[in-house]
Amino acid sequence: MRLALAQLNPVVGDLAGNGARILAACRRAATEGADLVLTPELSLWGYPPRDLLLLPARLEAQSQALDGLAAALAAAPGTPAVLVGVAEACGERCLPNLHNALALVEAGGWRVVARKQLLPSYDVFDERRYFRPASAPALLELECRGRSWRLGLTICEDLWVEEELQGQRLVGPDPIAALQPLQPDLLLNLSASPFSQAKGSLRRQLASRAAGRLGCPVVYVNQVGGNDELVFDGASFVVDAHGALLCRLPCCQEAVTLWDAAASPGPGEGAGSLAPEPEPLEQLFRVLVLGVRDYAGTCGFQQALLGLSGGIDSALVAVIAAAALGGNRVRALLLPSPWSSAGSIDDALALAGRLGLRTDTLPIAALMAGFDQALAPALGGEPTGVTAENLQSRIRGSLLMAVANAEGGLLLATGNKSELAVGYCTLYGDMNGGLAVIGDVYKCRVFELCAWLDSPAAASCRADLGLPASGELVGAAIRHKPPSAELRPNQQDSDSLPEYAVLDPLLEALVEQRRSPEQLGAAGHDGALAERVMGLLRRAEFKRRQAAPVLKVSGQAFGSGWRMPIAAR
Amino acid sequence: MRLALAQLNPVVGDLAGNGARILAACRRAATEGADLVLTPELSLWGYPPRDLLLLPARLEAQSQALDGLAAALAAAPGTPAVLVGVAEACGERCLPNLHNALALVEAGGWRVVARKQLLPSYDVFDERRYFRPASAPALLELECRGRSWRLGLTICEDLWVEEELQGQRLVGPDPIAALQPLQPDLLLNLSASPFSQAKGSLRRQLASRAAGRLGCPVVYVNQVGGNDELVFDGASFVVDAHGALLCRLPCCQEAVTLWDAAASPGPGEGAGSLAPEPEPLEQLFRVLVLGVRDYAGTCGFQQALLGLSGGIDSALVAVIAAAALGGNRVRALLLPSPWSSAGSIDDALALAGRLGLRTDTLPIAALMAGFDQALAPALGGEPTGVTAENLQSRIRGSLLMAVANAEGGLLLATGNKSELAVGYCTLYGDMNGGLAVIGDVYKCRVFELCAWLDSPAAASCRADLGLPASGELVGAAIRHKPPSAELRPNQQDSDSLPEYAVLDPLLEALVEQRRSPEQLGAAGHDGALAERVMGLLRRAEFKRRQAAPVLKVSGQAFGSGWRMPIAAR
Repeated sequence: MRLALAQLNPVVGDLAGNGARILAACRRAATEGADLVLTPELSLWGYPPRDLLLLPARLEAQSQALDGLAAALAAAPGTPAVLVGVAEACGERCLPNLHNALALVEAGGWRVVARKQLLPSYDVFDERRYFRPASAPALLELECRGRSWRLGLTICEDLWVEEELQGQRLVGPDPIAALQPLQPDLLLNLSASPFSQAKGSLRRQLASRAAGRLGCPVVYVNQVGGNDELVFDGASFVVDAHGALLCRLPCCQEAVTLWDAAASPGPGEGAGSLAPEPEPLEQLFRVLVLGVRDYAGTCGFQQALLGLSGGIDSALVAVIAAAALGGNRVRALLLPSPWSSAGSIDDALALAGRLGLRTDTLPIAALMAGFDQALAPALGGEPTGVTAENLQSRIRGSLLMAVANAEGGLLLATGNKSELAVGYCTLYGDMNGGLAVIGDVYKCRVFELCAWLDSPAAASCRADLGLPASGELVGAAIRHKPPSAELRPNQQDSDSLPEYAVLDPLLEALVEQRRSPEQLGAAGHDGALAERVMGLLRRAEFKRRQAAPVLKVSGQAFGSGWRMPIAAR
Repeated sequence: MRLALAQLNPVVGDLAGNGARILAACRRAATEGADLVLTPELSLWGYPPRDLLLLPARLEAQSQALDGLAAALAAAPGTPAVLVGVAEACGERCLPNLHNALALVEAGGWRVVARKQLLPSYDVFDERRYFRPASAPALLELECRGRSWRLGLTICEDLWVEEELQGQRLVGPDPIAALQPLQPDLLLNLSASPFSQAKGSLRRQLASRAAGRLGCPVVYVNQVGGNDELVFDGASFVVDAHGALLCRLPCCQEAVTLWDAAASPGPGEGAGSLAPEPEPLEQLFRVLVLGVRDYAGTCGFQQALLGLSGGIDSALVAVIAAAALGGNRVRALLLPSPWSSAGSIDDALALAGRLGLRTDTLPIAALMAGFDQALAPALGGEPTGVTAENLQSRIRGSLLMAVANAEGGLLLATGNKSELAVGYCTLYGDMNGGLAVIGDVYKCRVFELCAWLDSPAAASCRADLGLPASGELVGAAIRHKPPSAELRPNQQDSDSLPEYAVLDPLLEALVEQRRSPEQLGAAGHDGALAERVMGLLRRAEFKRRQAAPVLKVSGQAFGSGWRMPIAAR
């Protein structure tokens, strides 16, 4: 049986467009002799559709899209059937009244053949808001090339049942165990699994475990593309009954790849194509690039804009933006104040030159003086301290938004996760933007990514993404200067914060691992420092609530997976 | 049996403080001879605790708070036992691993006596993220005054099982039906039910229905207070077996009220105190006041700040803020531009005078000119159109934030729901603030509220809340001027938007009722206009994602109950 793994990049909510995308994959698969096309979870909607699922008119549009797809398959004999991810209305008024389901669409008709059993409602996921769980396993029997195939069907989380691999699993049935007595020839898992670091390996371990338990190969098809804060990395694959990798699709790009399931595979049989698997830093970089490209594309932006300070964060975002959209579609503003170092301006201009960005330099000193003068009657004098520092950031933010408004560009926020965690950022200032590109990347990781980008190891990735392949990109001058917001003379981040090499591990313990300062103190960390950092973290909640969507690349990002109260103790 | 209905206002996450609050209610109830104290759902945490429930250290703190409460009861003989809302760890590693539960705390010990069966995961609720549902009904048998009492225990949504009253109900068991064979003497429902218009009547209908099905009185205890975007209005009550109201607690304030349950109540027996029930507009006003007061109080703000334009929205927010904090703790900035009418400034100053607000007038013309000059090199000329209009708004937003930063005040955003829906507001400008006070109030309702505030009907409420009781408050000049953003000469909202009397019903159909433009066209509305408004609604999603928390007063507010994708079609 020849399967086409269609690792698609649907647009959220675009039922007609996604139907056309699926049809195109079927037509392409037909030319390569596929018997069945596999698409990701909720492929007709794009994952996550969120509250679009609550709109009755959208559910009607889904039926039309499915009818249209079935009619198109009928109109082109020889086009294979396709498994499509759908939201199935279960005909009851009690809420939730949908199933997260798979429909088999064939020439002239479609029917639901599987329903998801384990519905994630942790982290960024809200599936219990929309869906009710199914309790029965799904087995699809298909006649193909003269024999009957028994396909076990699972949807994403249904495969995530190995507590000791995952750390924690969702309460509920074990869909793999339920399939064992049904003796499938193949297990299919159609997913929309967002990227986070080290998740690729976990997915393969889970698939291997299921393959072993069922004694059959596992075909894992993942969505690809960026949808608001989530980036899906694709990297679909097939493992054999012993967990050996037979086929792997590329990371971070659409692909339709054929794989032949053998009726009774012998050892070593069934190998398909193996796309290269990038190293972790390259994966991270490609994911960020994809997140920016798709957010801009789906929102209809032709160009992006950012403030370039000469610091490492905005430098990294500039590189990502240039890779996502092309340097000629990225515009950089340099917004120096009297406290900006000459080096910063030179470094920013040199970087922009390497990336081919258009730059404008708009000094802000006159506006700073204007605000000082305007505010004096209300403040009884000129603003000082944090008030004055925030004003500089807000002047810059207003200038950036003005250019974005005038040109219809997407402003990219350049703050990193360390800053966002402790509130070392200005609301309505440097936090401005439609997307917080590196808001889930700790400062130490920003340094690592930039060091990698400037290393020979990044050359082929840079070339592949249209960046200059040789020479320094971020540049040693930017990578090696001490972090500074340059909001007062000779300011350095380390005046207000611990060194990032100390801060970042503490934040990871408090945020990702949800440990308390007391626990950290007891474990030998600096408990008083942990307490102080926890206080900063809590007090910055109001800022994060108004932050731009943060591209999620870790297990615990700020955004929809971090739901902390603001007014709390 | 003498019950104390403790309508408490806990602080989210403050386990020790909330324990002390509960203990104080028990001591007060003891002086009035109570046998049992009833507190709201999750009263030890404050509802909603959100992701604080995921922190293991907080669960340990909960155990300590419960132990401390039990010890305090033991130390003061005669203090009644108390039902406390808790998160019960269910001892399994699978997620979610908590129950939303009730603990009976008595002298020297505590035990869980009920677990919630219906877990809301719609609108603003995420209970499936934290809790697993119980499947069994809870009956608590208590010896009291020489007889045994059978108390049916339910938690909030467990009472919401009447599809034809609610429109839609949650899938799952019917906890009331499950209690029928257990023949309770009383049904208790301990809730944290946020305010929305017309919900008070629905709560009483649901309680009356349950009372009829069980043939016993129903005691309904609700939380009171504002927690971020949610405001809990209290208004706890008791109905008899026939649904007649026996006791009612006040709206929007803490109260501990005693009610005597009769062993075999005859007709007309069992009446307790009946606090007055405000009219709908007064309820709405009191809820908004409470929301501001608690947000400011819990976040530790001593004063609030807002921009006063002379328009009706900022006028209403000024009145709410003055009622919440006292006029002497509210500061108003007048930020006139060359396009501001003299009337607007005079009207704003007169309003501030009536409310006793401190004002400063900071003209923005020089800053507008400064930005024009600064931006010219990047824009190839001075900003025009929307870019120029947004700049004015952002200059004002930066001035307001500077004063808020310098003085540690809470900036209140003044935009209404109609504006927030169609994006007739400026991100990083007039949207600035820690709380969007009337972001869930449509413009037409803003007019109604202000007309009510200026009417004799509001006199006693105004006096009660420390506002001037007589004379106009908002003022006819402000109430009767045509809405205008005053961002260009002679601008009126109706230049860009339909009249609010047309727009607001359309928005309500699209937002609250989730109807589509096609459906509205088919139902006789202006389909093309509905389509245009829907487009505006969708395109403003990115602004709302970065909005301040909006005090929710409707069935569908923007905020955590509105989870629409941004990058979508």
